[in-house]
Amino acid sequence: MPAHDTPAPESRRPRLDVDTAAVRLAVRRCLADVGLPEGSAVLVAVSGGADSLALAAATAFEARASGIRTHAVVVDHGLQPGSDEIAGTAAEQVRGWGIEPHVVRVQVTDAGGPEAAARTARYAAIDTICLEVGATLVLLGHTLDDQAETVLLGLARGSGTGSLQGMAPLLGRYARPLLGVRRTQTRASCAALGIPVWDDPHNASAEFTRVRVRERVLPVLEAELGPGVAEALARTAEQAREDTQAFDEMIEEFIEEICEPAEAGIAVQAGALAANPAALRHRIIRYVAHAEFGRSLSRGHTLAIAALVTDWRGQGPIDVPGITVRREAGRLVFTAAGES
Amino acid sequence: MPAHDTPAPESRRPRLDVDTAAVRLAVRRCLADVGLPEGSAVLVAVSGGADSLALAAATAFEARASGIRTHAVVVDHGLQPGSDEIAGTAAEQVRGWGIEPHVVRVQVTDAGGPEAAARTARYAAIDTICLEVGATLVLLGHTLDDQAETVLLGLARGSGTGSLQGMAPLLGRYARPLLGVRRTQTRASCAALGIPVWDDPHNASAEFTRVRVRERVLPVLEAELGPGVAEALARTAEQAREDTQAFDEMIEEFIEEICEPAEAGIAVQAGALAANPAALRHRIIRYVAHAEFGRSLSRGHTLAIAALVTDWRGQGPIDVPGITVRREAGRLVFTAAGES
Repeated sequence: MPAHDTPAPESRRPRLDVDTAAVRLAVRRCLADVGLPEGSAVLVAVSGGADSLALAAATAFEARASGIRTHAVVVDHGLQPGSDEIAGTAAEQVRGWGIEPHVVRVQVTDAGGPEAAARTARYAAIDTICLEVGATLVLLGHTLDDQAETVLLGLARGSGTGSLQGMAPLLGRYARPLLGVRRTQTRASCAALGIPVWDDPHNASAEFTRVRVRERVLPVLEAELGPGVAEALARTAEQAREDTQAFDEMIEEFIEEICEPAEAGIAVQAGALAANPAALRHRIIRYVAHAEFGRSLSRGHTLAIAALVTDWRGQGPIDVPGITVRREAGRLVFTAAGES
Repeated sequence: MPAHDTPAPESRRPRLDVDTAAVRLAVRRCLADVGLPEGSAVLVAVSGGADSLALAAATAFEARASGIRTHAVVVDHGLQPGSDEIAGTAAEQVRGWGIEPHVVRVQVTDAGGPEAAARTARYAAIDTICLEVGATLVLLGHTLDDQAETVLLGLARGSGTGSLQGMAPLLGRYARPLLGVRRTQTRASCAALGIPVWDDPHNASAEFTRVRVRERVLPVLEAELGPGVAEALARTAEQAREDTQAFDEMIEEFIEEICEPAEAGIAVQAGALAANPAALRHRIIRYVAHAEFGRSLSRGHTLAIAALVTDWRGQGPIDVPGITVRREAGRLVFTAAGES
């Protein structure tokens, strides 16, 4: 009997579904990239939704194999009736996978809008637990879909590559292993593993811009421009992040050389600004405004200041919010507005 | 009687509407940036629509003041009944402003889809007339809205900053003075000047992706993310163009140093690739693939090749469409696929 007619022996292990495999692979790569030593602890931020539960389940699996302790923080924002039960359920779920849960009830003020306030309270709670349990890494469940939404929100601001770079895969101790995984995959992974998930009604509330992007903008983009738009936006984020890092490194390399303290401000060599391509010239101007005066310049203001270099005709000082810039002896002198 | 009570004498000139002023300013700046000498000729591409007629009217006005001859090319694509009449009408309109019109009937084949074919035929006709009349500059009527649409189309491709840079304000002899002017402004300018405009029914035909972006995608973005999205997209294009130019210049500066011919291909120093930030490393790899083999690498393929530098573990050659890349003696050797 030829070999291909022989039935394969039944595998002892049930076959792993592709979605759980994708989530685990993403977590495994993240842990490998960070290179945690055996015995260290990671903290997973868990909401009870599909993304964070799929992440927690995969982390429990991968961490066990690497001798890493796993904790979970479940933040109860107290914004909806029964939020304590939802948090409690999520805590019990992860405990069943060998993860030590920590439920934190936070007080959400309304500062900066409900989304921003909940976010601030959440990250404060995560940081507290992170320190308490001695975790060296915090895993967040943001997916490729969240990244695509973030890029669209940045695009609407139109402040260039910086606003298109989305969320960082790794920043300080925060890691987002699932930025290449679709939301449909985390949901399918939970379904395959028999994990019940909680659907936050806030995720369907059209009062939040992000929800409108998810529910109304992305579907229209997919329908009119063809499928793959979310992936295209996520790729854009990766490349925009690389570009931003490259420019940041370049500026760090030479910013000290071309700047010097000036009375009540800072002076930048006009020649150095002129010699650099526009992309760097504009970033240097924005860098100085931000680092010295805590101001974020608009593109219009940045170009007006750059014209003191690129279109120098002996013009007077340029006033932008909080800063006055004048050209003086081959230098652009930045001073706080009102001083000179 | 105090001065402010004295009625101002009626101006002899009717007051210029703001939209026409904006279009003229845009044309004036473009002509000044290019710095055309007196007696030279510009060619305006005119369709009979509001954008190109507003552009032509403003160019006639500005060019006269600068002693520049103005020609117009009206391309009759022959795709709609009566297209010859539409072209003839547009030609007569611009002749009335002192512009010499040239109507060209083109044959549109269907190669690459109807939009691409019409575009190819149109630019060939424009180039022919440009040479005939000895124009040093061709003005195209693309507006800020067209630019925003182009950025969205590029975003859907997701091939990074390069695909977000939209249309060039100036490339070779082609200039687009109206990239900062809204479509509503060109229309208002025509209305204020009493210029009848032709509405191309193709501009409302949902079979074209660009039309769907205009009619369905941008309105949803504006509605859900707030007004100013088109302007934000246009700003993104400007900055993406600057970034791309900066990276292109950097690569030009050192590409010769780090490359050398290899048998049936080209070799790039692995150390130089490793020393550069990811944004440059990936662009160098894409540059080599394109310049030597005429191939546009996807991000996935680019990253796979980059791993021969960033994640070198003695692995074998990488095959991407048309190219094989192997690491050999501290160099990445690119050869045409099938050769070695």
